[in-house]
Amino acid sequence: MSDQTLHSLVEEMTLNEKIAQLMQLAAPFFEGSKEQGEITGPMAEMGVTKETVRNSGSVLGASGAKEVREIQEAHLKTNRLGIPLLIMADIVHGFQTIFPVPLAIGCSWDIKLAEKSAEIAAAEASVAGVHVTFAPMVDLVRDPRWGRVMESTGEDPYLNSEFARAFVRGFQGDDLTSDTSRVAACVKHFAAYGAGEGGRDYNTVDMSERQLREMYLPAYKAALDEGSEMVMTAFNTVDGIPASGNKRLMRGLLREEWGFDGVLISDWSAVKELIPHSVAVNEKEAAAKALTAGVDIEMMTLCYVNHLKELIENREVSEDLLDEAVLRILGLKKKLGLFENPHRGTDEQREQEVIMSEPHRAVARELAAKSCVLLKNENVLPLQSGQKVALIGPFAQNGDILGPWSWKGSREAAIQLYDGLKERLAPDRLSVSKGCSIETGTEEELQQALETAAHADIVVLALGENSDMSGEAGSRSDIRLPEIQHELLSALKKIGKPIVTVLFNGRPLDLRDVTEQSDAILEAWFPGTEGGHAVAELLLGKVNPSGRLSMSFPHSVGQVPVYYNCFNTGRPQGAPDAQERYVSQYLDVPNEALYPFGFGLSYTSFSYGEPVLSSNVLKPGEAIQLSITVANTGDRDGDETVQLYVRDMAGEVVRPLKELKAFEKVALVAGEKKEIIFTLKEEQLRYHHSDLTLASDPGAYTAYVGPCSSNVKEVTFSLVK
Amino acid sequence: MSDQTLHSLVEEMTLNEKIAQLMQLAAPFFEGSKEQGEITGPMAEMGVTKETVRNSGSVLGASGAKEVREIQEAHLKTNRLGIPLLIMADIVHGFQTIFPVPLAIGCSWDIKLAEKSAEIAAAEASVAGVHVTFAPMVDLVRDPRWGRVMESTGEDPYLNSEFARAFVRGFQGDDLTSDTSRVAACVKHFAAYGAGEGGRDYNTVDMSERQLREMYLPAYKAALDEGSEMVMTAFNTVDGIPASGNKRLMRGLLREEWGFDGVLISDWSAVKELIPHSVAVNEKEAAAKALTAGVDIEMMTLCYVNHLKELIENREVSEDLLDEAVLRILGLKKKLGLFENPHRGTDEQREQEVIMSEPHRAVARELAAKSCVLLKNENVLPLQSGQKVALIGPFAQNGDILGPWSWKGSREAAIQLYDGLKERLAPDRLSVSKGCSIETGTEEELQQALETAAHADIVVLALGENSDMSGEAGSRSDIRLPEIQHELLSALKKIGKPIVTVLFNGRPLDLRDVTEQSDAILEAWFPGTEGGHAVAELLLGKVNPSGRLSMSFPHSVGQVPVYYNCFNTGRPQGAPDAQERYVSQYLDVPNEALYPFGFGLSYTSFSYGEPVLSSNVLKPGEAIQLSITVANTGDRDGDETVQLYVRDMAGEVVRPLKELKAFEKVALVAGEKKEIIFTLKEEQLRYHHSDLTLASDPGAYTAYVGPCSSNVKEVTFSLVK
Repeated sequence: MSDQTLHSLVEEMTLNEKIAQLMQLAAPFFEGSKEQGEITGPMAEMGVTKETVRNSGSVLGASGAKEVREIQEAHLKTNRLGIPLLIMADIVHGFQTIFPVPLAIGCSWDIKLAEKSAEIAAAEASVAGVHVTFAPMVDLVRDPRWGRVMESTGEDPYLNSEFARAFVRGFQGDDLTSDTSRVAACVKHFAAYGAGEGGRDYNTVDMSERQLREMYLPAYKAALDEGSEMVMTAFNTVDGIPASGNKRLMRGLLREEWGFDGVLISDWSAVKELIPHSVAVNEKEAAAKALTAGVDIEMMTLCYVNHLKELIENREVSEDLLDEAVLRILGLKKKLGLFENPHRGTDEQREQEVIMSEPHRAVARELAAKSCVLLKNENVLPLQSGQKVALIGPFAQNGDILGPWSWKGSREAAIQLYDGLKERLAPDRLSVSKGCSIETGTEEELQQALETAAHADIVVLALGENSDMSGEAGSRSDIRLPEIQHELLSALKKIGKPIVTVLFNGRPLDLRDVTEQSDAILEAWFPGTEGGHAVAELLLGKVNPSGRLSMSFPHSVGQVPVYYNCFNTGRPQGAPDAQERYVSQYLDVPNEALYPFGFGLSYTSFSYGEPVLSSNVLKPGEAIQLSITVANTGDRDGDETVQLYVRDMAGEVVRPLKELKAFEKVALVAGEKKEIIFTLKEEQLRYHHSDLTLASDPGAYTAYVGPCSSNVKEVTFSLVK
Repeated sequence: MSDQTLHSLVEEMTLNEKIAQLMQLAAPFFEGSKEQGEITGPMAEMGVTKETVRNSGSVLGASGAKEVREIQEAHLKTNRLGIPLLIMADIVHGFQTIFPVPLAIGCSWDIKLAEKSAEIAAAEASVAGVHVTFAPMVDLVRDPRWGRVMESTGEDPYLNSEFARAFVRGFQGDDLTSDTSRVAACVKHFAAYGAGEGGRDYNTVDMSERQLREMYLPAYKAALDEGSEMVMTAFNTVDGIPASGNKRLMRGLLREEWGFDGVLISDWSAVKELIPHSVAVNEKEAAAKALTAGVDIEMMTLCYVNHLKELIENREVSEDLLDEAVLRILGLKKKLGLFENPHRGTDEQREQEVIMSEPHRAVARELAAKSCVLLKNENVLPLQSGQKVALIGPFAQNGDILGPWSWKGSREAAIQLYDGLKERLAPDRLSVSKGCSIETGTEEELQQALETAAHADIVVLALGENSDMSGEAGSRSDIRLPEIQHELLSALKKIGKPIVTVLFNGRPLDLRDVTEQSDAILEAWFPGTEGGHAVAELLLGKVNPSGRLSMSFPHSVGQVPVYYNCFNTGRPQGAPDAQERYVSQYLDVPNEALYPFGFGLSYTSFSYGEPVLSSNVLKPGEAIQLSITVANTGDRDGDETVQLYVRDMAGEVVRPLKELKAFEKVALVAGEKKEIIFTLKEEQLRYHHSDLTLASDPGAYTAYVGPCSSNVKEVTFSLVK
């Protein structure tokens, strides 16, 4: 189908037909859906008619080859012009084979495996009929109170950008038209949804435009540079105007400045939410503002359907804007090959073969293992052969390890930690006891756990948050584990056995007490379908931990936000001339994270040589090499993530203490050493000046190399222009 | 002295002499000071010469008529052109008669008494030789972790502006030249020092320019409109550039846009701090940036003195900028009458009469009483005659009630709570026991306190923070009382006597446990010299509490920031269509403050009639009246603070849920009722639109009237243009 044909099709459409293309409703509204497309109850209250549904352009949250096929077939029978539906769904970290949550994937620092996970998610989703996934979510995050930090890859714009590109590549492949095992990506949430005040979901975002461009926008831009077909708006305000009605952000920055010509969709009900945001008095004004701002598809509210006709007929909104939006939506259908093949990859038979296949599970297992971060290890891990292990805690036997946004995943099919250990340990070496539930517990449970521990050599204590404690609308003001779990840990500590704490959770936690009372801590996040296998292999040393934090763990919630790429202030702690009191610090906690960005332990040890620069002068258009020798000095093979940070020693505006510029994950067998070479170019030193131009400054720079943002060796160079 | 003479004087000055006018050093550098002006130790390390000191323009922190006179005399003997020194000092909430900390004064909502307090501070400071006070501090504050919230009047731009004006009027009077009992004011810290990230002092500030103008700038502007002679820079960055090197902020906004032509002084060492901030590579660049930005006086570092000469000679900085700065400084000396009368109000004899006079102490007592906020009262206050009172706690007998920034105040002279009660209660009605210290305690102290409580009818428990726990560099990540004090409270609670908790502290605290375990809570802040008298009179019902919070108290630090004039979000809690989960909220605490802005109890009760508008249509250039009848329905006389808030129901950008527009503090005897009339004009509805213009929107508004931001009656009106 040619572009010309698309234009003709739009010309053939009635105003109502065009407007309905912009509406997105959930599957139950549609004939052919499992819920039969009966418009009743809350759906009826929305005031949508069967006629409108028949003209609509896309479906939210449908999946399963049989159902999607029936919906599409029913739709094509009743749609006057035979325009197929776009099927969209939230496939965030796996379809049925659930990978670790994105924040965990961020901790893998494994870009290729992240891409593979998206490719697998696309393969499973596409055979189940999905055309578009609402992913990747690339919001930069600094506040662990926010429940959706688990959906982001972390606090760094560069690392997030690398993952954003990887996810888009994995979802979309090279050619969406011919490769029906891929799905279109929809990068979200544009923009800066991760910066909600107080970590409260949907809350106000306020920052300078410079900070927005410098820190928050790069990952969205990276996803678009990689070809993400769609963008989703954020729920929050951006400089005082909700994203879904923000013309400057959407038409100005996204479309005009960045040249994005794909489909822009609102988040769920975000167009109508312009009213409670108090920038629109009613649905009609909300519709006008959203379309004017550039929102093509309105998700789950009816402002467009109920009011665009009148707005256009009264010439309050130009019909050109509507036509543009319709063309973009039809253009995406064309790119997905839907006009020729409305069922695309939908395949009931392949669905059985592809979904949850062993190769898929193997990747999920590998990624889960690489996502876990060993935070502490006082010579207790890996578990020794012959040791009797007491597995205790609310996550010992718990399938709630898929994390939020795993609606197609099955908790029953998830490998629990007990399953993973049981498969690998002789029966007399493993005992299990719950100890308590996530937020409550009984004296009996506690006593049983103490009894179990007393008969073992070592305790593996599986603690954490249930998945409802993070995810959307899962904001917590208290980021400690629930008190009952601290009580369990304290009680176990008293009996004197070594304690290995394994954490299942969706956000950086205040781990001060856990750190004090545990001999080892393994942060397993929500590891997904294969979690129990992955964690067991790590605990037993079959796999050597290699994860590194992509988001800092604060000492306490009172220290939030804590992130590595912060500024020095005028009175930095620890400066040579720092006074005792008058420095930028808290009286009661350190400034730094308890576990910083880039941190993670291994069962082996690595040593770093001195970093060497090919030249200490860098010129625009040229490049210099930084080389460093990294050696595995322990007796186990292991992966090391070598990190390169740079600091601009004086800028026109304040510059971060460190900024990640490159990293390399390198496998080293015991005793092996390798030279790692990084290339530095002037482009990497550019930043947004006070006039928002992107440029570098001549002058002094420091390059830092090491295994963690807080453990580096440094070398200096100059940029000469 | 004419302006022409000033210009001639500048022409006569050498480059070195001019540059030295821009330097401000502390008193010990000067001959005639108590420390003899010997440049030794750390002072010598600064590299300042005697010659430079003799040319310098101002002194920091000198006071006391004798010393100041001697410094000035010595200076005039050695200064070639006989230019007198400006004597500046931090007179923040009183000189020796210490008033409550500004945050407490904010809670008085008593603008006239606040002005009086500044007038008294000026009277005491001026006889002691001070010419300029580094006050008022008008930084808007939302984060109780920051120690300097005690220096601000709170979270509201309108209330802060009213106090800013009052303090400037009080310090400066009508004519600084003739009225030598006044001092020049220096509004600080320009700009937005109150918004440091994480509440950590000196930390990065980042916000949109719209938010800066809408919320943070008004109080500085109000102080300047009232004629504040000086402005002090902030330590923080403003849009990425430290204030002291921020040309756009200082030359652009402050001088050009606002027309400020007074003296701009850096905060302590803030010019040199451009280096650690990493916007200057060395002192020379720091000097160039600061002078170019418009900083006239460099406080306590020598970037100007050591480098301006070279910068000017090399034409890297224009000598015109230097001359401008010198002229402004000399202009202020002229305005203060120093050329004619270099000793101005300095008077050793009057010093004895004026300082700590009974009239001054009476005002301090009245303001302290009005600043206390009764947060809870379950029928236990006022204390009943005949009751035996056990006064317990680390603030029972503690002179550390002056708060930070009271360097001339005497803790020994401060009236402790025990003193205040003892003077008013028969000996057999009052017993006292410490219970614990601020942060530590012994079992013996605890047992004594329990014993004391056991023999009384009621416990008055005086808890709090010592003054070092707030103030400059006094940031705390944990805003609960120290744990030992909670233990004391819990132990006392168990013996079953009613507990009246009196709090002495410098910030909003997490009072959840205190609230649960106390029968009454009186927030006394740091009440100043007369604190013990004021609190005793409130406890005994001699004075009826009338204070209202000017800064919200959060439930916990994990909820920060919590402030009343926030935005609605697109998914507000409690909306008619709000879902159970998907609303903007925390899972574990409410969204609202534990004790909100405007809240405070009385010993009597007030009732409000229905608000009535003179018209429900407001037009530009016209005004409408809102009237409401307020009645004292209890049996005691009392003061009620009637508060008027407005909400713009739909704006071009999101609008706060409520904004304070007016208030009236009204005295009502028991049974009395009064009609309160507020006037509303279009000007009050203006706000900064997305293009930063200040304008109002036609459309719907709601006006709210009541005793507290969370307890109001409403009436609607429209703005018609």
